[in-house]
Amino acid sequence: MKISELSRRAGVPVASIKYFRREGLLPAGRATAATLAEYGEEHVQRLRLIKALTTLGGLSIAATRDVLAAVGEAHTTEGKLGAISYALPVPVADSPVADSAQGAADQTAAEAEVAELIAAMHWQTPDASPHVRGLTEALKALRRVDADYRPGELAAYAELANSIARLDLERAATFGDDAEAVAERAVIVFALSAPVLELLRRLAQEDQVRRRVAERGEAFS
Amino acid sequence: MKISELSRRAGVPVASIKYFRREGLLPAGRATAATLAEYGEEHVQRLRLIKALTTLGGLSIAATRDVLAAVGEAHTTEGKLGAISYALPVPVADSPVADSAQGAADQTAAEAEVAELIAAMHWQTPDASPHVRGLTEALKALRRVDADYRPGELAAYAELANSIARLDLERAATFGDDAEAVAERAVIVFALSAPVLELLRRLAQEDQVRRRVAERGEAFS
Repeated sequence: MKISELSRRAGVPVASIKYFRREGLLPAGRATAATLAEYGEEHVQRLRLIKALTTLGGLSIAATRDVLAAVGEAHTTEGKLGAISYALPVPVADSPVADSAQGAADQTAAEAEVAELIAAMHWQTPDASPHVRGLTEALKALRRVDADYRPGELAAYAELANSIARLDLERAATFGDDAEAVAERAVIVFALSAPVLELLRRLAQEDQVRRRVAERGEAFS
Repeated sequence: MKISELSRRAGVPVASIKYFRREGLLPAGRATAATLAEYGEEHVQRLRLIKALTTLGGLSIAATRDVLAAVGEAHTTEGKLGAISYALPVPVADSPVADSAQGAADQTAAEAEVAELIAAMHWQTPDASPHVRGLTEALKALRRVDADYRPGELAAYAELANSIARLDLERAATFGDDAEAVAERAVIVFALSAPVLELLRRLAQEDQVRRRVAERGEAFS
């Protein structure tokens, strides 16, 4: 199909398609003349994936390129899943340790809390994992507003996270045997389920707050 | 304390403090002269909360102002929780329904899926809830990349979300009896736990992918 047809099918403007081509997010079409290219179904699918990652997933163009490159890396499904897991942006950025006695103490305490959790959960995640470092940063930030987790609280959330990850991996695996297709689906499950999960949590919170408000005979905001 | 001392204590530059004052995020200090004000512990605490919401929570200045205004609304803890729940930004923005037969069909299907889930979960959340509308948008986006949830899958995630929300409400309630203090803590739990939960999910995913990779005798990316 021509680029105009591709644009219509994927719901992406022609200018954006050209931009994604220049940024290396979309493979080239088959050249049919000096300025004409023929695109296929794989381009429609890839464009829809890019659109979903940048809108629902909230990923930057650079992050989207990294994640799509990870789909092409490794030869097995498992290898691709690992590459995607590390390519996705971490919600909390690494920040330098505050240059003070308090800053050093906060860093040590947060690292110990994360190490203890990982040991208790038997998670096989190295200290250098971006997720380990992200969690350490998040706990430091919570400590600064006196909102540390009490003993056992973080582990209770982690148990639920284990159940969620099991559902995620099952979902990624149901999309067929082709490693490339599974990897594309894993991107969707890993990157696009986060907003769905957060909305479900917010719905459940709203429900529980509404029940408490109703018990007191008040109106919900 | 003077603004310089407030800046040091909260770890926020003086220019940012003045900006938060102008934007209505921080209450005024007690005027001691035409250009001097005296600040108290409540200003230190409020500044740390603003910093946590805008960095760890990723909230805009406008969203932070809305959430902090919600802390002051309603008289009871439950009323404040409701106001905060609705003031927090929703991860998926409402988008206009695509002006096509397909767009209308997608909207109807997503609305039915959400209504069915809410009925099955016995959630007391009205159609007009921003969380109901956000989930509808998210499901539409997933449908466009052929990644619909299969029957029962969304409900399995929703059950886990219920357990997470129960932990959240317990955490918010442990911070004392004063409605204002509980509301400030609820802001932290509601807004700042999302990145922690996402990191725990990512750690659990990484662990499960690593185990699969190890089973196949491969190296993790």
